[in-house]
Amino acid sequence: MAKLTEQERSELLQPLLDAGWSVVNGRDAIYKEYLFADFNSAFSFMSGVALLAEKLNHHPEWFNVYNKVQVTMSTHDVGGLSAKDIRMAKYMEEHANRY
Amino acid sequence: MAKLTEQERSELLQPLLDAGWSVVNGRDAIYKEYLFADFNSAFSFMSGVALLAEKLNHHPEWFNVYNKVQVTMSTHDVGGLSAKDIRMAKYMEEHANRY
Repeated sequence: MAKLTEQERSELLQPLLDAGWSVVNGRDAIYKEYLFADFNSAFSFMSGVALLAEKLNHHPEWFNVYNKVQVTMSTHDVGGLSAKDIRMAKYMEEHANRY
Repeated sequence: MAKLTEQERSELLQPLLDAGWSVVNGRDAIYKEYLFADFNSAFSFMSGVALLAEKLNHHPEWFNVYNKVQVTMSTHDVGGLSAKDIRMAKYMEEHANRY
């Protein structure tokens, strides 16, 4: 596991930025706020993400209230973004579309 | 559903304050940080709380990263603490002890 290279950033990160993710100010991390129909949908989304997080041993920082889920992804071990953050964020994009 | 009266506060809130909950600065809300062994335990805790939240239609504001869950409870409809916040917090106290 290593920090994303500049080339990886331009290739892998751009599609996420286009999908509403943003780079966190002053921190090598990415962030997105998801809004769902209700708490059931929001927590269903979180449950799917939690299963993958546990499988990859790579866990989000996230806040939830009712239908809102705010997620920040970064890789503590490398002090910034790694391929695991991209994988998790891509999964969230696909998974959120189910709700 | 109504705001807690002063008498209810002293009776119902004190046991929670004794258990590590605190009143949020500048807001009629209560807060606690729970620390678990790992993400599995933290998310298991959250899942149980989510089920009761949905049943009561009374949802927490919460943040999670890995083994840490920070919960804030308040009742939007009454602009402060209600009996539902006490019920949720008491459940969390019992439920957290399983992990």
